Amino acid sequence: MFALAAQIAGAITAPSEPDVMAFVADTMLLMISGMVVVFMAAGFCMLETGLVRAKNAATISLKNITLFSIAGLTYYLVGYRLMYDGVDGGLIGTLGVWSPDALDEPSGSIASSADWFFQMAFVATAASIVSGTLAERIKLGPFLLFIVVLTALIYPVAGAWKWGEGWLHVMGFQDFAGSTLVHSVGGWAALTGALILGPRYGKYAPDGRIQKPMPGSNLPLAALGTFILWFGWFGFNGGSQLAAGTIEDVSAVGKILANTNTAAAAGVLGAFATAYLVFKKPDLTLVLNGAIGGLVAITAGPLDPALWQAMIIGAVGGILVVVTVPLLDKLRIDDVVGAIPAHLVCGIWGTLVAALTTQAEGLNVLTQLGVQTVGILAIGAFVAALSAGTWLALKHTIGLRPTLDEEVAGLDKSELGMEAYPDFYTG
Amino acid sequence: MFALAAQIAGAITAPSEPDVMAFVADTMLLMISGMVVVFMAAGFCMLETGLVRAKNAATISLKNITLFSIAGLTYYLVGYRLMYDGVDGGLIGTLGVWSPDALDEPSGSIASSADWFFQMAFVATAASIVSGTLAERIKLGPFLLFIVVLTALIYPVAGAWKWGEGWLHVMGFQDFAGSTLVHSVGGWAALTGALILGPRYGKYAPDGRIQKPMPGSNLPLAALGTFILWFGWFGFNGGSQLAAGTIEDVSAVGKILANTNTAAAAGVLGAFATAYLVFKKPDLTLVLNGAIGGLVAITAGPLDPALWQAMIIGAVGGILVVVTVPLLDKLRIDDVVGAIPAHLVCGIWGTLVAALTTQAEGLNVLTQLGVQTVGILAIGAFVAALSAGTWLALKHTIGLRPTLDEEVAGLDKSELGMEAYPDFYTG
Amino acid sequence: MFALAAQIAGAITAPSEPDVMAFVADTMLLMISGMVVVFMAAGFCMLETGLVRAKNAATISLKNITLFSIAGLTYYLVGYRLMYDGVDGGLIGTLGVWSPDALDEPSGSIASSADWFFQMAFVATAASIVSGTLAERIKLGPFLLFIVVLTALIYPVAGAWKWGEGWLHVMGFQDFAGSTLVHSVGGWAALTGALILGPRYGKYAPDGRIQKPMPGSNLPLAALGTFILWFGWFGFNGGSQLAAGTIEDVSAVGKILANTNTAAAAGVLGAFATAYLVFKKPDLTLVLNGAIGGLVAITAGPLDPALWQAMIIGAVGGILVVVTVPLLDKLRIDDVVGAIPAHLVCGIWGTLVAALTTQAEGLNVLTQLGVQTVGILAIGAFVAALSAGTWLALKHTIGLRPTLDEEVAGLDKSELGMEAYPDFYTG
Repeated sequence: MFALAAQIAGAITAPSEPDVMAFVADTMLLMISGMVVVFMAAGFCMLETGLVRAKNAATISLKNITLFSIAGLTYYLVGYRLMYDGVDGGLIGTLGVWSPDALDEPSGSIASSADWFFQMAFVATAASIVSGTLAERIKLGPFLLFIVVLTALIYPVAGAWKWGEGWLHVMGFQDFAGSTLVHSVGGWAALTGALILGPRYGKYAPDGRIQKPMPGSNLPLAALGTFILWFGWFGFNGGSQLAAGTIEDVSAVGKILANTNTAAAAGVLGAFATAYLVFKKPDLTLVLNGAIGGLVAITAGPLDPALWQAMIIGAVGGILVVVTVPLLDKLRIDDVVGAIPAHLVCGIWGTLVAALTTQAEGLNVLTQLGVQTVGILAIGAFVAALSAGTWLALKHTIGLRPTLDEEVAGLDKSELGMEAYPDFYTG
Repeated sequence: MFALAAQIAGAITAPSEPDVMAFVADTMLLMISGMVVVFMAAGFCMLETGLVRAKNAATISLKNITLFSIAGLTYYLVGYRLMYDGVDGGLIGTLGVWSPDALDEPSGSIASSADWFFQMAFVATAASIVSGTLAERIKLGPFLLFIVVLTALIYPVAGAWKWGEGWLHVMGFQDFAGSTLVHSVGGWAALTGALILGPRYGKYAPDGRIQKPMPGSNLPLAALGTFILWFGWFGFNGGSQLAAGTIEDVSAVGKILANTNTAAAAGVLGAFATAYLVFKKPDLTLVLNGAIGGLVAITAGPLDPALWQAMIIGAVGGILVVVTVPLLDKLRIDDVVGAIPAHLVCGIWGTLVAALTTQAEGLNVLTQLGVQTVGILAIGAFVAALSAGTWLALKHTIGLRPTLDEEVAGLDKSELGMEAYPDFYTG
Repeated sequence: MFALAAQIAGAITAPSEPDVMAFVADTMLLMISGMVVVFMAAGFCMLETGLVRAKNAATISLKNITLFSIAGLTYYLVGYRLMYDGVDGGLIGTLGVWSPDALDEPSGSIASSADWFFQMAFVATAASIVSGTLAERIKLGPFLLFIVVLTALIYPVAGAWKWGEGWLHVMGFQDFAGSTLVHSVGGWAALTGALILGPRYGKYAPDGRIQKPMPGSNLPLAALGTFILWFGWFGFNGGSQLAAGTIEDVSAVGKILANTNTAAAAGVLGAFATAYLVFKKPDLTLVLNGAIGGLVAITAGPLDPALWQAMIIGAVGGILVVVTVPLLDKLRIDDVVGAIPAHLVCGIWGTLVAALTTQAEGLNVLTQLGVQTVGILAIGAFVAALSAGTWLALKHTIGLRPTLDEEVAGLDKSELGMEAYPDFYTG
């Protein structure tokens, strides 16, 4: 309608394009969504701080705010153009110098600054996943160097393949808000790191059993972090519609919010019930990760499922978390916060199941499933290879791990020389 | 104006209804408001976790995230239609099966998915109130079963009477955002539960005096929770305008935000001053509940009062909290977080005082006050009766309370087998 | 375009002014921004609670929620009109009685209630700065009385000079969102208070060295507070565009968000690197304050810099924080949370550097730099003078400090008779 009104108006004076109302609504969507996605950094920080031991809590807080800051700058300096600028069905964008006023121009029907802001907010999510898995036993320096590589190179290139309209996009790969492109990317980087870094000292006995459980020191903070992530996910998924200026678009955002919440709730109940069945007791940590698992699972396709489908997708996510956590322990893969089950396993699940409700033009469910598998494997192989290379390079140069004494004393003491809770008697 | 522009445009091509701009603005309002109301779950979780003893902190966190998840699913499966579908001046909606694409259609001038999302976010608030009052002495299983009944049946039916356009709506009952429909509903369910469950072991001496004060273990988290609730309340009250696409509507939302903030601030100062007068010292817990009391009080009519009236409404809310807390103790009603004063007492106050600034068509202040009283009593009786029935049924089947040993050891140990703060020496 | 469409429509029926779409978008911007700025109160509360010792944590939480409430009421009763009503190039607005329905009328192209709500949310920020610096050694009563003076008189008058279109505005002073008007105002009030109040007992040895470091008791909460402030700052700076209903305005908001995030991230990395260079270890507290320093620095001019400029502005802010903290200690100025470096020093830096990217009509960079200096000095002198007068009056009447015994025991015990963490063994 407004376009028509504009036409009439245009008949009198100058033509008015693009449509102001849509421009305002689309840009507002990206800005508000971007804000709450940035706030997810607080969620990851609290979740991880709550799930490490008190002697590593200050270090993990420092890692979280620093990795978010690194992501914000590298994505500006390098990542954004690598991901979006001239990928054109290929593998990678450009590294050309950005004109200083690049963000002052509109980009299609939105402010390019708002688009940059929204996309930037996603990068740190992948980095936060790594931070959680590798907590309590990696030195600050090599961790942050890895984050530079992840946010400047690995994440943007993987993203270019789909969101930058690279080769996976051409094939018809579906990943609405990043079950694979964000969460699995972080998960693969974390898994590779965990394998190369090894478990925390004392976690596993030589026979592979858990020798010493190392429970999180502040579960209420972990619960808070989960709630913040849940809140931020509305921006993560809802904003990925990228437009809100028509009845169709804004209704799509509403549908996405409803599905996102439903999947999270089902993830909680799925994890609750499974933990109860398996361990005879509910488990708060698993339930929190169940929420995240449900959220990750719906992220690849939050628009098309009906609510009952979102419920199933999320519930399976929650179940997968509870099933995978002991599996990792059996493999002696030490994932401090449970990020690999929640982000990688549920990321794969969500990407696969999205084929049932969303198909690219010309693809049926089966071929779509094939394309999804290709995308999962290609991105997994790419991220794992580059991550492994980076981790190994760091290991053989500056080294990854603190000394055993430092690890036992806690990284807060060895890395920062301070305590997270100095007034409290901690053990 | 846009309707007119549309008319002109329509003269040339197709008529364009409903108005796109209003549809977008209304839906955005409900989505953004719904998001921050969902985030209130974090506020309740932190408030309650901060106000229980350390040995029950993990359990109360688990209860909060689980009850929110239950509410999100039961309200989809049952509650929403019971509350809104064909109540038509009566007592209750329908239980008919929901078509899978029900949320894909617009509902009047908004996306039906956004409407569902916004209404869903309210349900858990009522449930959170129950969780706070009954903390530290109720088993997880029966608590969650009660939440199923509350969110699937009790809340939606009470809501149908007014918001579903049932008999109280026809009478002219005023409750803009739910002083009665949300907060008192939760409060009555909590009060009934507290009476049937009894106080925590050791709280009261046989002569009725407080034998052992049981202060909250983490007051900074309780303060955080209160701030989160304050923030979320802007969505709670502001979103209840349900529209923002006209100058009148969006101005109404602005007025509501101003009044909501003012009532909360006045609640803080009212509680601060009253506590200072009564106890000679200010009291952080009472001040936090004073904020909530002020917020609950303004919720029944946040649009019509002038700021100075909002100030008085909120201040009285804060005062009522401080006055009611010792009263409950005298009655040996053990309300762990002070939810009954803040939500039930201030909910009644807010519903009554709303008659002074808001009257249904054809009612004067006095008759409106009568209608408000009818609504308060009817909903109180209904919720108390159904809650009591449910609590008693649970008590006489699976039982409500852990053993005395379990209660003394803390529910984290007995229900979850884990600790909220395992690295800290707690007593 | 819409104005034109309105004109056409108007040719047929009634003229439609102001433009509905712009009115809705502008008002929504102020409401959403105001909400997240209000939420900054939670950020300050967590930051300060995390950075004081456990024995003062309940008191600082109480101070934060109470000062926010005082600010909300005094700004309504007195401040808003002092700041905006008829300043007209002069020094101060009016104290006339506000009509009860003043907030029901539109104010230009926005709802006046939304404008009031947004401006009100800023006041408490200045007050929170004072609370942090003076923590652990000031009695509750005189602190809150100072807050009344600050929020009712000092802040609004300083604000009137620029935002109320007073004499500094006429001169061409630039301060987009308040590096000087909010952050330095709070900083000067805090600095004056710190000088008059003196340091915490035992902090400095007679020779001026730090005798006893008093580290924050809960650094994860301080990290959370910083993330909340970061999130809220998007509303603080973005909302200060005051309009979002045109392509130009909404794009400006997008640019502001991108610059704000970039400055914060650069502040983190600037503080990280500087602390590492100076102390050979990174420091979590300094990094958190580095984020705030970067945010304060960009606040005077968040719209005009390119991203690379925002990066430099923020990085210098982070560096300044690390450089200034030991300087204050050398001067035996005891700033408990580091608010003076982050808010006052970076506020001055941000106000000066804004001259490079933003000039008033008719001013070149050099003259603009002169005007900025005049503004910084004038507001500094005014705030310091009134603050000093108020602090001294309080000191010589009711007294500012608790007794030495009370201070050593902690204010939670002496002022509130309660503990923030009663279940934990603290030292």
